Amino acid sequence: MLQNIRVVLVNTSHPGNIGGAARAMKNMGLSRLVLVQPQEFPAADASARASGADDVLSGALVVDSLEEALVGCSLAIGTSARDRSLPWPMLDPRECGAKSVERATMGDEIALVFGREHAGLTNDELQRCHFHVHIPSNPDFSSLNLAAAVQVLGYEVRMAWLAAQGAPSISDKADAVELATLDEMERFYDHLEKTLVDIAFLDPDKPKHLMARLRRLYGRSSVERTEMSILRGILTETQKVARGESHKRKD
Amino acid sequence: MLQNIRVVLVNTSHPGNIGGAARAMKNMGLSRLVLVQPQEFPAADASARASGADDVLSGALVVDSLEEALVGCSLAIGTSARDRSLPWPMLDPRECGAKSVERATMGDEIALVFGREHAGLTNDELQRCHFHVHIPSNPDFSSLNLAAAVQVLGYEVRMAWLAAQGAPSISDKADAVELATLDEMERFYDHLEKTLVDIAFLDPDKPKHLMARLRRLYGRSSVERTEMSILRGILTETQKVARGESHKRKD
Repeated sequence: MLQNIRVVLVNTSHPGNIGGAARAMKNMGLSRLVLVQPQEFPAADASARASGADDVLSGALVVDSLEEALVGCSLAIGTSARDRSLPWPMLDPRECGAKSVERATMGDEIALVFGREHAGLTNDELQRCHFHVHIPSNPDFSSLNLAAAVQVLGYEVRMAWLAAQGAPSISDKADAVELATLDEMERFYDHLEKTLVDIAFLDPDKPKHLMARLRRLYGRSSVERTEMSILRGILTETQKVARGESHKRKD
Repeated sequence: MLQNIRVVLVNTSHPGNIGGAARAMKNMGLSRLVLVQPQEFPAADASARASGADDVLSGALVVDSLEEALVGCSLAIGTSARDRSLPWPMLDPRECGAKSVERATMGDEIALVFGREHAGLTNDELQRCHFHVHIPSNPDFSSLNLAAAVQVLGYEVRMAWLAAQGAPSISDKADAVELATLDEMERFYDHLEKTLVDIAFLDPDKPKHLMARLRRLYGRSSVERTEMSILRGILTETQKVARGESHKRKD
């Protein structure tokens, strides 16, 4: 079950932090590490700090984009500072652990996404996550070491997992449904954006926060596969109508 | 109140771990560090890993024995592997956080005691502690990095402290948005249905379960007022386009 939970580190500067994160993961029973454009990897510093978690490092997947890192995931939770201009569904680490374990138990693939040492995740990256998680910290000294942040979220995953071991499995639920994967969601957002341009609701030159707001809405809704087909069908029909309209205008 | 809680590191080998522990402490709002016979301190590695928590390092008290480190304390909690021949009152990290904060609030001085990187605390040292705390971990790879262990216990102290403040949880805050009311939702469903008929996605004579499925999707999404305005705006634009289209067909 814990193998359904991957840890994604985006654009990490210091290989020592990758090693520290790998050790924290293995300590907590997590094994799947994905590195998005690490600045230096593999590296001696990473192995040194991994301190025996070499299997996590050698099994790490190195990819070029967050999108690739999230393929197959139906839940992505990104670490974030509390105050963002864009409000987003926020979890604390305990809620993050509970939600990850609950969904992993249902067979979903989960990603916990960590940003750069100094700059964190970009707004664009954060908008690809369904939830944001903030580790409560001293407001005057709030930036945790990357491996320490992995340790805290991994610890809460383990606590939730241990609690779930004592509880009847929820995978037996009769209403287990198939959710749209993250890449299906991305194709939907792409289709949605094009359609909104076609009907002239979205001005590509002044997009404002429209797509971000729509991502936030659909991202938190656990859209099912069957619902996704309906939404895509609506967009396709809307585009047909819009294409007819623009044809008419040219006449 | 958090100033009543000190972190005691016994006989630490690697100064980098002292720095990492100082950073974790400051992140969690803890400031009092006591070092029992550190093998190397002060040290450049400690300052580098402290990454701005220099005040915690420079304020650290260096002493010769655990006994000295615990002067004035009425509660000492020592980190321990789970299986000790010596049975002792055990806490998990969450209970450790709760107990530390409860007693610190009463004005007691508390010590959280961490052992050597490889060997932990000796039985003699453990017997000087009122409670032992064990961080749940992978039985096959159970030894956490020292700074990571300080991070986990510090995090649980902060969570307990925030709860004691009565601070609203992060997710409560995020929930403090205005949701669309039930009648606004009904007007939306009505508008959606008409629009789907307009674009010929919904056949009023064979509606099947389409509207029920869409109600289920949006109904569970806690749609906010601002999001509702966007959705309604999209429908209005779609209808304009569709009206142009049907006009064209009549021509």
